[in-house]
Amino acid sequence: VARAVRTRLLAGRIVGVDHDPGRCAEALARGLVDEAVPDVAAVPWGEVGLGVFCTPVDQIAAGVLQAAPACRHGTVLTDVGSTKAAIVAAVEQGLPAHAAFVGSHPLAGSDRSGPAHASELLFRDRVVVVTPTGRTPGEALERVCGFWTALGATVRHMDPAEHDRAVALTSHLPHLVASALAGILPDALRGLTATGFRDATRLAAGDPRLWEAIFLQNRPALLEVIGRLQDRVVEFKKALQTGDRSALLTLLAEGCANRTALDPPSPAG
Amino acid sequence: VARAVRTRLLAGRIVGVDHDPGRCAEALARGLVDEAVPDVAAVPWGEVGLGVFCTPVDQIAAGVLQAAPACRHGTVLTDVGSTKAAIVAAVEQGLPAHAAFVGSHPLAGSDRSGPAHASELLFRDRVVVVTPTGRTPGEALERVCGFWTALGATVRHMDPAEHDRAVALTSHLPHLVASALAGILPDALRGLTATGFRDATRLAAGDPRLWEAIFLQNRPALLEVIGRLQDRVVEFKKALQTGDRSALLTLLAEGCANRTALDPPSPAG
Repeated sequence: VARAVRTRLLAGRIVGVDHDPGRCAEALARGLVDEAVPDVAAVPWGEVGLGVFCTPVDQIAAGVLQAAPACRHGTVLTDVGSTKAAIVAAVEQGLPAHAAFVGSHPLAGSDRSGPAHASELLFRDRVVVVTPTGRTPGEALERVCGFWTALGATVRHMDPAEHDRAVALTSHLPHLVASALAGILPDALRGLTATGFRDATRLAAGDPRLWEAIFLQNRPALLEVIGRLQDRVVEFKKALQTGDRSALLTLLAEGCANRTALDPPSPAG
Repeated sequence: VARAVRTRLLAGRIVGVDHDPGRCAEALARGLVDEAVPDVAAVPWGEVGLGVFCTPVDQIAAGVLQAAPACRHGTVLTDVGSTKAAIVAAVEQGLPAHAAFVGSHPLAGSDRSGPAHASELLFRDRVVVVTPTGRTPGEALERVCGFWTALGATVRHMDPAEHDRAVALTSHLPHLVASALAGILPDALRGLTATGFRDATRLAAGDPRLWEAIFLQNRPALLEVIGRLQDRVVEFKKALQTGDRSALLTLLAEGCANRTALDPPSPAG
């Protein structure tokens, strides 16, 4: 975020927050931030126009609620968490009247993290979901939408619970499946993996603690889509057990059609 | 294969075989082959040193057995099929005494196919499994290993059934899982997919007919590894249902460790 903001000259001053002094030093050295502080309490909130919380999802609400009382009127707080309902509910329950929070989830990321992998293009042509509620001030929502748009993203408004149900399928389930697949690979077969296994399991390299928190914050929706995947795998299994070529072909063709619709192949040549 | 052979000047003359006249014309126009014929019967087998069968797995044995009687002594036939036991058994049952066949499976490929996507680098630094049996002539095995090595690959010898059990987990199961995941994506959620979903489902774009044949030729091994994946998904589900953070973290950490071991991250910078 800092890199993208910096490149576009969208902030007069950027303050980074990280409990790891090494990471603070690196962010400063790479010119990502103007100042780096070790915790939320050390941020000069009275001077902040926009605060973006990028902690693990189970720490976002607490961070926002810690910052809010120190904010001036007009400061807008947002986040980048992969879950929204629990965060938005916890924040709205404790937010002082003068502070404003808008939940955000940029559908952008990488299997790499840290200042060394910062990219000003991370949000370009990506979708950012924002999840306003009846309590979200209109100006705060506009400010947050304008911010993501300025970073090159397309903003989409959703209800927090609707967001969580959607990303359970499009983001959390793929992570779970990638992790399950990687988890059952015996060491002896490592040398027999090719691009396919690597693509299908790439997500599994994500930080286990971050994903534990995401999964636990989205339990009901995630359990629901796990059930849908299990049913689909059972359909494949039955088609194989009975040698039902037509059922097998239908299952594969549906997967192929859905995948191809996502990502039209580049023109030949 | 033709592109890689051509670039390395490994063959005096390359004859391509495809029932599709348009594809034959394109392969000729792109200089991949010197001659293109519509079927196995039209190949001048008496002049062939090495024949590589790249048809769907359920057509390989028949093609080899059709070609073999016309081959001269010394011609070596091989293939690139993703399954080996059924193909090797069927070929060895019908192969005339003067002909030689060695099963091969290059762990290389792409989600793109056709002459337009030919790459001379496809086999570089990849593993090719060869599956000789007690009936494989030593010179034929040497010839085939030398061929793949010349294309830049590392050759690994395996028993055909052992190969099939291994790739059931490293190749066929990832395809099935990618297809299952892509198959349950509702159209309405297409716009909420990001890199993660796309990576995890990339394999699903593969030709359904090719994969139907592969799955059916490797049924017992594939069913066995589907069972292992199902067990793992159930472990995730139980950890979520009971809110067992430690179990969930262990599952994610094992997946992360296995995935990271495959593909060490590039150095930061």
